[in-house]
Amino acid sequence: MPYTYEYPRPSMTVDCVIFGLDQSHKLKVLLIQRDHAPFEGHWALPGGFVDMDESLERAALRELEEETGVRDVFIEQLYTFGSPGRDPRGRVVSVAYYALVNLGEHPVKAASDARKVEWFEVDQLPELAFDHAQILAVAVGRLRAKVRYQPIGFELLPELFTLSQLQQLYETILGVAELNKRNFRTRILKMGVLREMGRQEGVAHRPAMLYSFDKEKYEQLAKERYEDLLRRGVDFEI
Amino acid sequence: MPYTYEYPRPSMTVDCVIFGLDQSHKLKVLLIQRDHAPFEGHWALPGGFVDMDESLERAALRELEEETGVRDVFIEQLYTFGSPGRDPRGRVVSVAYYALVNLGEHPVKAASDARKVEWFEVDQLPELAFDHAQILAVAVGRLRAKVRYQPIGFELLPELFTLSQLQQLYETILGVAELNKRNFRTRILKMGVLREMGRQEGVAHRPAMLYSFDKEKYEQLAKERYEDLLRRGVDFEI
Repeated sequence: MPYTYEYPRPSMTVDCVIFGLDQSHKLKVLLIQRDHAPFEGHWALPGGFVDMDESLERAALRELEEETGVRDVFIEQLYTFGSPGRDPRGRVVSVAYYALVNLGEHPVKAASDARKVEWFEVDQLPELAFDHAQILAVAVGRLRAKVRYQPIGFELLPELFTLSQLQQLYETILGVAELNKRNFRTRILKMGVLREMGRQEGVAHRPAMLYSFDKEKYEQLAKERYEDLLRRGVDFEI
Repeated sequence: MPYTYEYPRPSMTVDCVIFGLDQSHKLKVLLIQRDHAPFEGHWALPGGFVDMDESLERAALRELEEETGVRDVFIEQLYTFGSPGRDPRGRVVSVAYYALVNLGEHPVKAASDARKVEWFEVDQLPELAFDHAQILAVAVGRLRAKVRYQPIGFELLPELFTLSQLQQLYETILGVAELNKRNFRTRILKMGVLREMGRQEGVAHRPAMLYSFDKEKYEQLAKERYEDLLRRGVDFEI
């Protein structure tokens, strides 16, 4: 039945899984060290309670900026986690968001509920507060599934890049040492978001082809969220 | 900041988008007619407020059964809708779920907050309460995108079926009059979930091949939810 003062209601939070790529070829995630109980001193995802007047997405971006300094990030809704026992404070339902950024473009600075902020390799995580390890696992899975049907790399690579560089980006995200080069090239060119821009110059080895992203085509495919799936659903490519 | 009696919190609801298929080759959705304000007399998605002690999924299944009599449905989380203005009663955040069922296996009966319950063709909808038209549009888009990468049809077709019957099911879901037959066959066989079971007998025309679903392979692919994406992400097929 509808909530009244007699019937308590759950609390709502948002949590952010911000993945980062850099030159290390290791997929990283942004974590904060909690400054308050519960789980004080534990590492956790940035996040917090949703205000009454803001959208969920705005709440996620606000908490992210307040706790880590990170802003101007394209986030997507991941999943809503509502198991009754997930938070010792009581019934807290969390709407999780995720993003993939170029680590170098986002300096971090802890503030608000965060004592420290740091990038961690996703396969070298500390113990996390609440059910954040589970949220993170779901986010990693979503990111890896997403690269199968949406192009990535636009903000993460230089303006001109080789297919080897793009392949390395995929290998980093997928956490695999090496993808089959020929298959990768076939599939990535089939996505139709790359433009040949001419061969490398001034290199000792055989010059590789340089590519750039066809920005319009890329954005048409890459920026889709569930809200846009209706349009895409009609473009079933059979 | 965390909620206290001084700082109100949003309410949480769940909403269910139950798609149904029957012999009509028109994709349908289950709607209820609201028996209370707001939007009394309007058609809407079945749903309601989440109790403090139940998971979101259990809340969705409970409200669905209470309002429509429908049960034993495999639901998946669709998206969480949290725009501040979406509900005139105040701040209500709704976690939406969806499912696809064989209409004939689910008799419906209105009860609780529902005055009536009925299946509607998705392209012949009445005006809906709240933002349910938007939720429904997102659900249709998700269903249509989902059929691109996960097999469907197991509960919806007879045990033995022809590729034409399976193609018709896809055409119904996608809302297209006709898919390219050769492309469809190639792609559907490539999914690897079908088994040839021998040709039709006793038909006037040229007997078509009958297929069944390889249940194990099918379930491995079809029952995945976001919680399972981590595993699938590792199986990147490059």
